[in-house]
Amino acid sequence: MNWNSQFATRTQYTKRSAVRELLKLTAQPDMISFAGGLPAPELFPVEKVKEAADLMLSEFGHQALQYSETEGIAPLRDWVAAQFNRVGQPFTIGRDNVLIVSGAQQGLDLIGRVLLNEGDKVIVENPTYLALLGAWRPLGVQFLGVPSDENGMVVDALEPLLQQGAKLIYSIPTFQNPQGTTLSLARRQQLTGLLRKYNVGLLEDNPYGELRYSGEALPHVFQLEAEADATGQLRSRVIYSGTFSKVLTPGLRIGWVLADEAVIDKLVMFKQGTDLHTSTLNQYITHALARDGVIDQQLPRLRAAYKQRRDVMLAALAQHFPAGVTWTRPDGGLFLMVTLPTHINAADVLQVAIQHKVAFVPGEDFHLNGGQNTFRLNFSNAQPERIEQGIAILGQVLRMAVA
Amino acid sequence: MNWNSQFATRTQYTKRSAVRELLKLTAQPDMISFAGGLPAPELFPVEKVKEAADLMLSEFGHQALQYSETEGIAPLRDWVAAQFNRVGQPFTIGRDNVLIVSGAQQGLDLIGRVLLNEGDKVIVENPTYLALLGAWRPLGVQFLGVPSDENGMVVDALEPLLQQGAKLIYSIPTFQNPQGTTLSLARRQQLTGLLRKYNVGLLEDNPYGELRYSGEALPHVFQLEAEADATGQLRSRVIYSGTFSKVLTPGLRIGWVLADEAVIDKLVMFKQGTDLHTSTLNQYITHALARDGVIDQQLPRLRAAYKQRRDVMLAALAQHFPAGVTWTRPDGGLFLMVTLPTHINAADVLQVAIQHKVAFVPGEDFHLNGGQNTFRLNFSNAQPERIEQGIAILGQVLRMAVA
Repeated sequence: MNWNSQFATRTQYTKRSAVRELLKLTAQPDMISFAGGLPAPELFPVEKVKEAADLMLSEFGHQALQYSETEGIAPLRDWVAAQFNRVGQPFTIGRDNVLIVSGAQQGLDLIGRVLLNEGDKVIVENPTYLALLGAWRPLGVQFLGVPSDENGMVVDALEPLLQQGAKLIYSIPTFQNPQGTTLSLARRQQLTGLLRKYNVGLLEDNPYGELRYSGEALPHVFQLEAEADATGQLRSRVIYSGTFSKVLTPGLRIGWVLADEAVIDKLVMFKQGTDLHTSTLNQYITHALARDGVIDQQLPRLRAAYKQRRDVMLAALAQHFPAGVTWTRPDGGLFLMVTLPTHINAADVLQVAIQHKVAFVPGEDFHLNGGQNTFRLNFSNAQPERIEQGIAILGQVLRMAVA
Repeated sequence: MNWNSQFATRTQYTKRSAVRELLKLTAQPDMISFAGGLPAPELFPVEKVKEAADLMLSEFGHQALQYSETEGIAPLRDWVAAQFNRVGQPFTIGRDNVLIVSGAQQGLDLIGRVLLNEGDKVIVENPTYLALLGAWRPLGVQFLGVPSDENGMVVDALEPLLQQGAKLIYSIPTFQNPQGTTLSLARRQQLTGLLRKYNVGLLEDNPYGELRYSGEALPHVFQLEAEADATGQLRSRVIYSGTFSKVLTPGLRIGWVLADEAVIDKLVMFKQGTDLHTSTLNQYITHALARDGVIDQQLPRLRAAYKQRRDVMLAALAQHFPAGVTWTRPDGGLFLMVTLPTHINAADVLQVAIQHKVAFVPGEDFHLNGGQNTFRLNFSNAQPERIEQGIAILGQVLRMAVA
């Protein structure tokens, strides 16, 4: 049987993620990789995870290894809700506003399937997270791109797209992937106004928000927009996506979606068919870690280490990259984006760079169109001296390319 | 914003799974539940899981908590392949024929999305696994049902449906859910012949195959159908779905798909958008348990315990159920199916039974049509004395209903 003739039409919209394919190539130990979005493994709280696994299996072994509810285990949903309720607000977020998902990526996939019909217009920052494009392209939606500058999405450019009848906006307002830029407070307020004016939904993806190294914390768009209905229930045009991957470890694959009950309810129905529920054991472990303060212990360590790595990378870029090359200066997160002179193709540069044992992700796949002269650099995974060394090598490669 | 007006058309095809909603209701400790498909938690190898987690985190902590490849970790894929290669066959199943998934349910979901277009005809046993129907209904496919008898799917009834141009067959040949019946060897051979004659694909779902309590083991349809191509590579019209949930624990959510490389390759692309990859830690734990012989230790325990429970249930049914009620006699698995006189609605019986603290799943949701006079009984989860007690109560309820 020739299976290649059997695949559904929607498979034509997909291609392998360049990042994930690169991850394989860059697994060689002598490669300096700025490619993946990997946290620093040497900072993982391995001993704490071991203790949490032991504790939870000792106390709740039978439940923690059994099937469980699609929505997620109650104490973890309650913990997430409580985090959001710490801020004074006119409504209380409850357990039924929270769905535990198998990594934030699953939330993005489910939200697309629950909300988007073929042909629907979806507004995204251009460039944006490439696995969001990968997840939603099979749905046959039409992506409309909004440009960004140093203050994040150019919200002034949003209104004409909303007038075309967009169904949903997808945004990473804080430490955007791949650009590292952050939406300013003024623009968050302006965006909130447009959501209300056009009564349009926004998916706020915030995997990196806790990883701030400079500047002031800003409210989520979700917090600016959400209101209470007559009965005190949450009413929001914003669906919020969060994760434990960056503040604990990604290998547990635990994320969450926060939204109106009606949205959560529909997501639950689709999640049932998708994987029944998220790993019970990993939910128990994550709850123990969160409850026992391990995230609070991790955050200062992560912020200090990643701030240093960001600063080392920014200094190395200034020192080694040739004139005509520019880059973003993120206040947090894992990434920055480099822009080359328009005639230089980043994929060609990558071929040479890999021969010199340095890897990055060309920007094209993050873009709806264009971006061939851009690439993304991750600064969280490599040690500072390797960052310095890798950027120096990349600078040499670029000087030859630019010349 | 009224989110209820925002949902995609495909959401109209979904409804909440009756089983999963019932699981909540039946979580009360005084309820005797024959409802879910839950393994016996007291048989979980809790200490072994604890040791495996500790060992893997000690040896591979950084890798086990990091992002990993979408395909699954290599040693676990190799372990699965090796299990199938133990049988003499003209081809070698390799790592690239195996995809690790977040529970077998995810494999079913991904296979549907990769193969099925709106309007495609899909043949299923009627009744069949309800979460397969739940996963594939949003794709807008047309299900065609084949009846079953004590020897499983009536393969004679399959050919007319194949002549209508079906795209794919979904079958649980061994200890079927919900019926508990097993496809005979003669019918497996007949089915294999039809797959070849009509060049049609089969998804063989085999979550319970290792749990046999009587009768002789039969070859998978996959084994009967698969061949080697000119280069010794696997060529099969059968996609095989397997899981560790029933032989280790479901809470880890680790399953696999075995298929031609072309199929695995396409599934990987869709899995990337769905959850990036399955929990790295749980794959490490599962590999340690499998490698260190825990499945081999578990199987005799599980078979002995579940055989006893099946036998207790069958004896109790014979003793307590009124004339005119019939049931299947499974050789393995977790379930049997009861058929009431046609004028009795099992959902009505359930309402009364729950008042008497006994639960089961009405058969209607497993059926494409009909089945209102059937229900499914699980015999793996409750202790033998509770099975005896619960069936006696159900017998009383039924005698009143039949009278």
